[in-house]
Amino acid sequence: MLRGLTNAGLGALKNDEHLMELASQYSFDSVDLDANSLVSRLGKDAANERLQSLGLTVGSIGLPVEWRADDQKFQEGLEQLPKAAAAAQALGCTRCCTYILPSTDHAAAHFMALATTRLRQCASILAAFGIRLGLEFVGPHHLRTQWKNPFIWTLEETLDWIQAINEPNVGLLFDAYHWYTNGMTVEDIARLSPGQIVHVHINDAKDVPVEQVLDNDRLYPGEGVIDLAGFLRGLHRIGYQGPVAQEILTPSQPEDSPEDLAARSKACFDQVFTAAGIE
Amino acid sequence: MLRGLTNAGLGALKNDEHLMELASQYSFDSVDLDANSLVSRLGKDAANERLQSLGLTVGSIGLPVEWRADDQKFQEGLEQLPKAAAAAQALGCTRCCTYILPSTDHAAAHFMALATTRLRQCASILAAFGIRLGLEFVGPHHLRTQWKNPFIWTLEETLDWIQAINEPNVGLLFDAYHWYTNGMTVEDIARLSPGQIVHVHINDAKDVPVEQVLDNDRLYPGEGVIDLAGFLRGLHRIGYQGPVAQEILTPSQPEDSPEDLAARSKACFDQVFTAAGIE
Amino acid sequence: MLRGLTNAGLGALKNDEHLMELASQYSFDSVDLDANSLVSRLGKDAANERLQSLGLTVGSIGLPVEWRADDQKFQEGLEQLPKAAAAAQALGCTRCCTYILPSTDHAAAHFMALATTRLRQCASILAAFGIRLGLEFVGPHHLRTQWKNPFIWTLEETLDWIQAINEPNVGLLFDAYHWYTNGMTVEDIARLSPGQIVHVHINDAKDVPVEQVLDNDRLYPGEGVIDLAGFLRGLHRIGYQGPVAQEILTPSQPEDSPEDLAARSKACFDQVFTAAGIE
Amino acid sequence: MLRGLTNAGLGALKNDEHLMELASQYSFDSVDLDANSLVSRLGKDAANERLQSLGLTVGSIGLPVEWRADDQKFQEGLEQLPKAAAAAQALGCTRCCTYILPSTDHAAAHFMALATTRLRQCASILAAFGIRLGLEFVGPHHLRTQWKNPFIWTLEETLDWIQAINEPNVGLLFDAYHWYTNGMTVEDIARLSPGQIVHVHINDAKDVPVEQVLDNDRLYPGEGVIDLAGFLRGLHRIGYQGPVAQEILTPSQPEDSPEDLAARSKACFDQVFTAAGIE
Repeated sequence: MLRGLTNAGLGALKNDEHLMELASQYSFDSVDLDANSLVSRLGKDAANERLQSLGLTVGSIGLPVEWRADDQKFQEGLEQLPKAAAAAQALGCTRCCTYILPSTDHAAAHFMALATTRLRQCASILAAFGIRLGLEFVGPHHLRTQWKNPFIWTLEETLDWIQAINEPNVGLLFDAYHWYTNGMTVEDIARLSPGQIVHVHINDAKDVPVEQVLDNDRLYPGEGVIDLAGFLRGLHRIGYQGPVAQEILTPSQPEDSPEDLAARSKACFDQVFTAAGIE
Repeated sequence: MLRGLTNAGLGALKNDEHLMELASQYSFDSVDLDANSLVSRLGKDAANERLQSLGLTVGSIGLPVEWRADDQKFQEGLEQLPKAAAAAQALGCTRCCTYILPSTDHAAAHFMALATTRLRQCASILAAFGIRLGLEFVGPHHLRTQWKNPFIWTLEETLDWIQAINEPNVGLLFDAYHWYTNGMTVEDIARLSPGQIVHVHINDAKDVPVEQVLDNDRLYPGEGVIDLAGFLRGLHRIGYQGPVAQEILTPSQPEDSPEDLAARSKACFDQVFTAAGIE
Repeated sequence: MLRGLTNAGLGALKNDEHLMELASQYSFDSVDLDANSLVSRLGKDAANERLQSLGLTVGSIGLPVEWRADDQKFQEGLEQLPKAAAAAQALGCTRCCTYILPSTDHAAAHFMALATTRLRQCASILAAFGIRLGLEFVGPHHLRTQWKNPFIWTLEETLDWIQAINEPNVGLLFDAYHWYTNGMTVEDIARLSPGQIVHVHINDAKDVPVEQVLDNDRLYPGEGVIDLAGFLRGLHRIGYQGPVAQEILTPSQPEDSPEDLAARSKACFDQVFTAAGIE
Repeated sequence: MLRGLTNAGLGALKNDEHLMELASQYSFDSVDLDANSLVSRLGKDAANERLQSLGLTVGSIGLPVEWRADDQKFQEGLEQLPKAAAAAQALGCTRCCTYILPSTDHAAAHFMALATTRLRQCASILAAFGIRLGLEFVGPHHLRTQWKNPFIWTLEETLDWIQAINEPNVGLLFDAYHWYTNGMTVEDIARLSPGQIVHVHINDAKDVPVEQVLDNDRLYPGEGVIDLAGFLRGLHRIGYQGPVAQEILTPSQPEDSPEDLAARSKACFDQVFTAAGIE
């Protein structure tokens, strides 16, 4: 598995270059960032050289398409997608991710039909550039009633949705936080195959009743109560070999310097990977 | 357009042979029935000869798969589907239909995902036998709250679902009753293309406020308040040339003889087709 | 059916505006042109006003994606497609077409697999903008051996390919020239349904043995030997209501003025539509 | 990885029970057999108990559908498929495989389109029962010209075809013999992900020029010239954890007893797995 960073959890980063430097300095393998912006800034060749000299790969880009609003918004996003996918491909990145809100103001069944079509269309474009689409189910309970109608939030529902979308390049973004807040176990991971997982997020949860865990109040890996050793071991055992990227969403930005936060992240990764018995 | 009969509205029919005889006697063009049963009873060749001698085609078969319950039930139905499809194909029938209940006890979004996959699988099998799948949206208001969660019931939602299912052989079963109870107009029909319509049902509604119209309390064409002339003209104008089959669901079976009900059906068809100016 | 013009057959047109003016002046209903270029030049609103004031719609755009070469070329085209589709949609155009060369220098089976994926991806993007993709089979015999390996050129093969592509918005561009050079009859048209036809081309062929008919040596409708009255009647009977666009490919550009050629085109359309008994 | 047996290479087996007993006796983990026949013979529960008591799982069933001939033959097979899939599912089997002949008497491009549709329909049915479809590319050179037109035989072509089929449950049957006869290396395996591989065959080739290797003249693993240690290590490194099943096609049935052949198979497996450093 590859150790990855996102900018969530590193405080006041100046820019993607800053993220890349810190990731390299603290021995991470991958960074999640906006490939299109990087390619636009440096050009494809220089961007690849920069990544290579830092010993980094790009783990995943975010899906630059708003698929939860109206058709016009969706179509505007779709116009941007091929370019974003081409930029990711140019950097050797094969992952693009988006998250699923557990409730919606739309009529749930109709929105599911619309979103199925839209994500299929996104996946189809991504496939043309050799990129997979990861869907992140979101577990925290408070979000299940945040909007008018319940949507979906469990692993099983998400796998069923992925089957409904029916594009071979769609899979899971598997996040330890949502695994935990859904009350799942290591056995649930054992039932997956590595081909079902596009990307992995890692982070930790406070020691409060699981129903009260808030989505944007996360801890660094190993600083909370999630069985991250079991989580990592489970993924390793089924043969997952992709990135495990830290994503620490917090109510406000951490005040520590990005350097200190990156060092802390490295220490946290070392701790949980060692606990899991994975090099 | 072809004038069609189903057994709904013909009272105590003895069997499909009875339906076929009455359809032929009263100058209908098509009948909706269980093709597999007919082929099993007569054999393929004799069944076709019988249909031909009666001047009839088979309009549509019903989808013999329960896609609204659990996986096991669905799989059991799926095992029957290729045979049913082969029988329909053997009789020259190119349509298979099912209806969509406007509410559900399942979680709506998850059920939409599951049902999308299941209907795609049905459609895929039907396609192998040259058969299209028609989905009937169901308009009566009382059914929208009959089960726990609202599902879908409008034309627009159904077209969006058909796009989500994403199999080229899926379209609408367009029923005058659901057109009426959804408050739709002739202009809504004009926006359709004939390729979107797999099959058509015709029947009429009582003169009560539209919110109070009951699904199983239908009238014969022309005996109620639906603008069936407009309905037929609308379909004719966009180029629809398939069957228009009567389906009169009633609280209890009509007491008149099937012969009388068939004669009444013919008179009703004559009336509304004449009013529409269609031969 | 709508009478349509393309720029093929109108000689030295100055630009699309010229095409539009002549189409309007000679009572055509639709023009095939580059929607993106028109929208870029005039803006969406002015473009629509211009079309409306001329009594025109846009029949079809051409697929701006090279799907017959390598992946890079294809991806570059794909990056342009959403914008082109959005422009077509902005003008109310619902058709996008491409043609199939009857032979190829690629290994035929592998190229069929690649092209299936590529056209599906194109179709998926077009669907997001409400646009259908029309595939034109190409009949002239000399093209069947023009490149190393035979590909496909018949109606049946093309319908089978459309089924393999498996996107609901893909259908035929049905061209009278290819109908003729494939030795097809009016009965072959009767077996189609209007939903299978995205777009229609009309033109005529010289009185030479059908095996010697050249793809780029076409005549104006009615000036050759194709049974265009039967062709149009066949399409009308199955309920086709879309555009029938003239496309006169010739060895060199006609020397007559665009005005004269447009007048001649109108006279030709009048003749064949009258012969077909269609207003 | 699981060590698996098929009946190819065990000589004059009496029946599937015989295969199962020998597989168990010689410490194999899985057998490839006709699940439907086993379930029909013993019933679902007894069949599962028998497998469990023997320490076996069912690796894969063969696709019981002839997709290379005409529509009628295909449809007849399709009628059998749901039952076969249900039987496999009842035994916990998640794989169904078929092979691709490298040449064909059909027109290659048209046949590719037809076969794409047919295999998609098979895959869709299998998906309803939780089963994946493995496609085996076939490398021996003599088969590339065995029939009139070249079809496909390389890994790359097969992956492109799998993308054209576009069902998420379709992947490769990866056979060491076809890897070897296509001149592939361990690096080619490293480029795959485990989700792309449905099933694996192992066997060995005679020491003749690779162009002369015959498809039905195979050796037991380790008795020939294929780098099976590299093959297995490559699969292990990418995380493949499924069955590796022996399939020894020979010009005539081996004369040794099934017991001797099973013992020899075990010794061969021990040798190549040890050489690969895999337990």
